[in-house]
Amino acid sequence: MQEVFRYIDDHLEETLDELRRFCALPTVSAQGQAISETAEFLSEMLRRRGFDVRVLPKQDKGNPVVYAERPGKSPKTILLYNHYDVQPPEPLDLWSTPPFEMTRRGDKLYARGVSDDKGQIVSRLAALDALLAVNGEAPINIKFCIEGDEEIGSPEIEPFVHKHLDLLKADACLWEGSGVTWDGQPQITLGVKGLLYVELEVRSAARDSHSSWATVVPNAAWRLVWALSTLKDADEQVMIEGFYDAVRPSTADERAAIEAMPSDEDELLQTLEMPRYLKGLRGVDYRLRHYSEPTCTIDGLTSGYQGPGAKTVLPALASAKLDFRLVPDQDPQDILAKLKAHLVRHGFDDIEVRHLSGGHPARTPLDSPFVKVVEKAAREAYPVEPLLVPTMAGTGPLHSFIKTLGMPTADCGISYPDSRIHAPDENIRIADFVSGTKHMAAVLAGMGEA
Amino acid sequence: MQEVFRYIDDHLEETLDELRRFCALPTVSAQGQAISETAEFLSEMLRRRGFDVRVLPKQDKGNPVVYAERPGKSPKTILLYNHYDVQPPEPLDLWSTPPFEMTRRGDKLYARGVSDDKGQIVSRLAALDALLAVNGEAPINIKFCIEGDEEIGSPEIEPFVHKHLDLLKADACLWEGSGVTWDGQPQITLGVKGLLYVELEVRSAARDSHSSWATVVPNAAWRLVWALSTLKDADEQVMIEGFYDAVRPSTADERAAIEAMPSDEDELLQTLEMPRYLKGLRGVDYRLRHYSEPTCTIDGLTSGYQGPGAKTVLPALASAKLDFRLVPDQDPQDILAKLKAHLVRHGFDDIEVRHLSGGHPARTPLDSPFVKVVEKAAREAYPVEPLLVPTMAGTGPLHSFIKTLGMPTADCGISYPDSRIHAPDENIRIADFVSGTKHMAAVLAGMGEA
Repeated sequence: MQEVFRYIDDHLEETLDELRRFCALPTVSAQGQAISETAEFLSEMLRRRGFDVRVLPKQDKGNPVVYAERPGKSPKTILLYNHYDVQPPEPLDLWSTPPFEMTRRGDKLYARGVSDDKGQIVSRLAALDALLAVNGEAPINIKFCIEGDEEIGSPEIEPFVHKHLDLLKADACLWEGSGVTWDGQPQITLGVKGLLYVELEVRSAARDSHSSWATVVPNAAWRLVWALSTLKDADEQVMIEGFYDAVRPSTADERAAIEAMPSDEDELLQTLEMPRYLKGLRGVDYRLRHYSEPTCTIDGLTSGYQGPGAKTVLPALASAKLDFRLVPDQDPQDILAKLKAHLVRHGFDDIEVRHLSGGHPARTPLDSPFVKVVEKAAREAYPVEPLLVPTMAGTGPLHSFIKTLGMPTADCGISYPDSRIHAPDENIRIADFVSGTKHMAAVLAGMGEA
Repeated sequence: MQEVFRYIDDHLEETLDELRRFCALPTVSAQGQAISETAEFLSEMLRRRGFDVRVLPKQDKGNPVVYAERPGKSPKTILLYNHYDVQPPEPLDLWSTPPFEMTRRGDKLYARGVSDDKGQIVSRLAALDALLAVNGEAPINIKFCIEGDEEIGSPEIEPFVHKHLDLLKADACLWEGSGVTWDGQPQITLGVKGLLYVELEVRSAARDSHSSWATVVPNAAWRLVWALSTLKDADEQVMIEGFYDAVRPSTADERAAIEAMPSDEDELLQTLEMPRYLKGLRGVDYRLRHYSEPTCTIDGLTSGYQGPGAKTVLPALASAKLDFRLVPDQDPQDILAKLKAHLVRHGFDDIEVRHLSGGHPARTPLDSPFVKVVEKAAREAYPVEPLLVPTMAGTGPLHSFIKTLGMPTADCGISYPDSRIHAPDENIRIADFVSGTKHMAAVLAGMGEA
């Protein structure tokens, strides 16, 4: 592998130039921007490497999937799942440099998508470039399934997978891309949380009123605040009836893996400039909560006058964006039904619940043979032992791949804990990009030998 | 007075043309717009009528006061309080026509400020024009005190009044301008509620996070929601400790006056397209609550992602605008102190309270001789009996005039219940403008005879 690794080092600047051009496309799925342009750009990237590329539509809604396949030496096949869309860049004034102009500062690269997920795609292709250059062929068959709307919850991915079972069939799957710890220890992640994303909206009158009417005219903002305050208490306990019913406790080896992870919580505290985590959690307790517990998050609040100074107005309209991260075996549709029932039960039938997106939690067992291949490859690419992570705290449509396609699915990549995905100044460390690319090359090679 | 009234009718179009030009100035004090331009425009309007005009600065902050005086036949002096600033026009998309282009549709005129307060100023000047044209002189001395920042809470008005006690001295004061009921019955309003306007802000981290961190990273939006939910319960009871302590019960004649007011609540229900008022209140109960009770209102909420679609973000910053309407003898500084103490006591010392503006509640007694003059004048100008209203539900810096200057202060004018002040499509009915102008002429004449 040393020759392959050297090729990766030697061709880094070309690779980063391709990444720069990819990140220049403002592929914001939440705002429907640059979708077909990016799908075409990505297809070209794949065709240049000898892939047979198809841009496949989803069923009713959602952006097209870029599907690509390329034969290799071994009969083994890997499916690489990624997405070409990115999160909205707002708030723009908190970016140090423009979000769609990849900028190098010190040992880091900054751009929306540089980590999540365009950087991971470019890293995987750079790994293949090196294997092809050194060996003249790919070690295994490679399939890419690259979505265009993961950041809005991958609509219609389940029916898409059901429709293309043969096309997507593989021996194993690598997920969109995780990365290393603060200390540079590679993480192999084996699951995701589920997600339910909703918007709550309440209209209390046909129009805003002068706030002197607050004696007698209902206030949409108050209705929203009161409704939200019934959903979670100040001790972070979700109070929706039945919310925790389907939560299954972690298995013994999941718990052991979480306990074995390093205590890296100080770095995030520093980055966020916070004195402490919720409930003062640290160490194992902090990690067990982070990886094992479901959440209920207010992602946004909007009502009334938000400009400078004072405006005495009684708002007729108020809304909140809300997401729930779910753990096995919570079901997003079940949680949605429970949320609606809860609001009605507590007298908030004036609150409209709009379902924006959702996905199931899913996990690959820690003792899967594919996991061993990814672990072994990590030992070749990194100077330190890899960590097994039973689940991400984040979400992706892994359920369709692990359950429907029946594949072991793992995740590794080029990111690090301060990559600021979904936030201003999204970034990667160049050294992590190089190591992650080498790891990817070793996984592809290792699967060919297994 | 009939000749004076006829003059008002005959010169209506000229008067409305002056109003149109006045409303064309976007004098939004909350955004610091067009202040000096409007002060100059207004000064010219006054000089044309023979006023001696002075543009007087406030002490530290605040926009200049346009002060003007003009002698009359009787030694009596009236002080007319008005303001030349307006509320922000936002949300712009809810205006049927541009807010700063006065538009006539049917029997109404639409523009920001057409009622609050530029329309009232123009009406008062038109009343004087008629008296001058018919009698060759003004019946009494007239002083105008016209603020430029009433809509942001009249900063520094108390020290301004203290500094100019002699200048502002008068036998009575007319306030900025109220109007008629849904049925066209003129209202003579004798008091205001007080106001405390604050902004609550909480920052939970240096920057937003990906919402998967919601397990361990505090969420500013949740902190804000929880804090707000401790301030008022869903039964509309303010829960700040001591909030109601200083509320003095209405006097018997205040209560009788409120009971004598007509049941006009159906019109507002229709306009707001609401099935019912808070607590299902109607009739006397509705009015007693509206005029006698203090309020706690969320005027605005801001946090996290507010754009289209789903963004999974954990907000580090959240803020709310909040106003309290206060009744005698609540004190805005006392309520501010109680609000801060309440938040700390309930564990919300992370919530910053910024004081934006405030004012004391104030009332003129119903049996004041000046009130009799205004009542008698209303009987000349309107075909129906006037109503005495012990207090507005709204706010103004009346306290400085009633208490500091020791003047009886009443309010009457050109507005009606659907004037939509502070909201999109602010408007007046032209017939109310004419009657209100005649009433004003009769008040000035009546004071000269008293």
